[in-house]
Amino acid sequence: MLPSDHPIHKLADSDYLRACRSETHDRVPVWFQRQAGRSLPEYHAIRGPGSILQTLRNPEISAEITLQPVRRYGVDAAILYSDIVVPAECIGFGVDVVPGVGPVIEAPFRSASDLERLRPLDPDNDTAHVLKTIEILVRELTIPLIGFAGAPFTLASYLIEGRPSRDYANTKALMLNDPGLWHQLMERLSDLAIVSIRSQVLAGACAVQLFDSWAGALAPADYREFVLPHSSRVFAELEDFGVPRAHFGVGTGELLSMFAEAGADVVGVDWRIPLDEARRRTGGEVALQGNLDPAVCLAEWPNVSEHVRRVLAANDGHPGHIFNLGHGVLPATDPAILEQVVALVHEEGSVGAGDD
Amino acid sequence: MLPSDHPIHKLADSDYLRACRSETHDRVPVWFQRQAGRSLPEYHAIRGPGSILQTLRNPEISAEITLQPVRRYGVDAAILYSDIVVPAECIGFGVDVVPGVGPVIEAPFRSASDLERLRPLDPDNDTAHVLKTIEILVRELTIPLIGFAGAPFTLASYLIEGRPSRDYANTKALMLNDPGLWHQLMERLSDLAIVSIRSQVLAGACAVQLFDSWAGALAPADYREFVLPHSSRVFAELEDFGVPRAHFGVGTGELLSMFAEAGADVVGVDWRIPLDEARRRTGGEVALQGNLDPAVCLAEWPNVSEHVRRVLAANDGHPGHIFNLGHGVLPATDPAILEQVVALVHEEGSVGAGDD
Repeated sequence: MLPSDHPIHKLADSDYLRACRSETHDRVPVWFQRQAGRSLPEYHAIRGPGSILQTLRNPEISAEITLQPVRRYGVDAAILYSDIVVPAECIGFGVDVVPGVGPVIEAPFRSASDLERLRPLDPDNDTAHVLKTIEILVRELTIPLIGFAGAPFTLASYLIEGRPSRDYANTKALMLNDPGLWHQLMERLSDLAIVSIRSQVLAGACAVQLFDSWAGALAPADYREFVLPHSSRVFAELEDFGVPRAHFGVGTGELLSMFAEAGADVVGVDWRIPLDEARRRTGGEVALQGNLDPAVCLAEWPNVSEHVRRVLAANDGHPGHIFNLGHGVLPATDPAILEQVVALVHEEGSVGAGDD
Repeated sequence: MLPSDHPIHKLADSDYLRACRSETHDRVPVWFQRQAGRSLPEYHAIRGPGSILQTLRNPEISAEITLQPVRRYGVDAAILYSDIVVPAECIGFGVDVVPGVGPVIEAPFRSASDLERLRPLDPDNDTAHVLKTIEILVRELTIPLIGFAGAPFTLASYLIEGRPSRDYANTKALMLNDPGLWHQLMERLSDLAIVSIRSQVLAGACAVQLFDSWAGALAPADYREFVLPHSSRVFAELEDFGVPRAHFGVGTGELLSMFAEAGADVVGVDWRIPLDEARRRTGGEVALQGNLDPAVCLAEWPNVSEHVRRVLAANDGHPGHIFNLGHGVLPATDPAILEQVVALVHEEGSVGAGDD
């Protein structure tokens, strides 16, 4: 269990944490994936030029960027301003995040000799700036902070492809042709995620999210064989903290039951699957997070509000619902629209009988 | 009905056409999306430099490229070597296909005034080279030729975004904010598809496929409201020919039932949904096409064969199955692997009792 001065104790009854546990609460909680940065003018004002990875090395600025959407939107949870490639970068794998492209790897993962480049993470040294950011945030925040890491598959896809991919051809070829190496790689990346997340929770995060953004590219049988055991281990190694563990990916309609099976307490759902159908597929044992299409937020308010109401209606008052987008906020989004979304969810979202 | 010298009459009992009608037949038929071009050395030898749109204006070369995979692989159907942007290009919308990028639109569709740039297609003049290609093919082929067009949504996404997109943000914004203009655009693009496909069938195509490759980006409710009526009209306007009408997209797990509802006789399924589940969702009334992950074909043969067998097992002998990939052949694919896939499907694919 976490020490008595950990913020989870005083925030245990927040709407967000209660919804993660499918317990009754007052208002449907809402936060947005990628709420920090990108679409906020105050972010662009503070961020300066250069790589996001440089910005992340400054705890004061990273904390401020994390707080900006909390102030503006009135969301129910903050998510650490960071990136899923940070642990790999901080152990020296050679990663950059190129604006308009995404993560780019100088020397992609190709063979067993590359395993050596994935040494264990030592958070106190390698990601001290991340922990410092969290310490600042814990002092400032009155809502839960969500920490996160990249799931082993999605991180592997970046390290192997070398840049964002549409088909994950190299990743799948390595997975199928050299399962021994694949599983070794996944173990190292699972360790990275576990150690990184554990350090974030100990520093003050009240919930965690494992991003397997691109797992939806896999056939269900391949996911089960090559990914599920590793994601399951990550969740198992986080269980002792008792903090909610969310699991997210896009295009995961056929994987949702396995996302729950992996040990997640909260399963992220994209806009392709209505929440009632997602609830059926996950067996009703987990809370759901989602699932407004981020592109809808580029439309005019009457259209946005209609789609927000559609999400709330599909959830039908189930207490295990955290309102969110089905993927990250798009850069062209008008922040005023997101403000209105938060207000509407808080106003109209209804919470029925829970598990307590 | 089609004239008595149309090839569909002599090919009516081919495995491919019988499978499209869910009738018993000898061997499970197989063809590959993008079997023509890309991965074939004989294609790169004949193709020359320059835009694919230039190559397509040469009927002899286009026919030869269509025939190359038929000779090499022994597939059960040929698909016209063409591109879904051809009709839009041929009426002068200003489209290029940039190698390594995809379709690029010089002046993307933005407002009502752009509708004028989408005049009706006059196949005998605008796409005479396409019809000439089909005439050559009809003389050469002893298997059915598949004609095709882009579905109105997917074509709209290219015309609006101006280039391949990951989020279709502009497309969805126009769809929601200006439904009047959206439906006018969809009507014009539906007309393009109808007229183009009808001309291909009259020239000798024995089956058609409507590619709605990116429809899977939509929430089901949006698909139903903004896309389904138009795709339905396209299929309805092709019904009188009596040729099988296939409908394909990726990431369409939640749309499969509406793909069938639109009037397709054959529904393409990507590798994310096992065929038995796809069969449940489509209600068993349509044939299914798919669904090997194209990236699996980059693996070594034992892995490929295991995945091929998995597809056949999930279909479980249903006569309404055309084996295919869940998306196009990847450029790095070894043609020898695809040869082996065809041989394995022909050897091990079993066909149970049909509807006749």
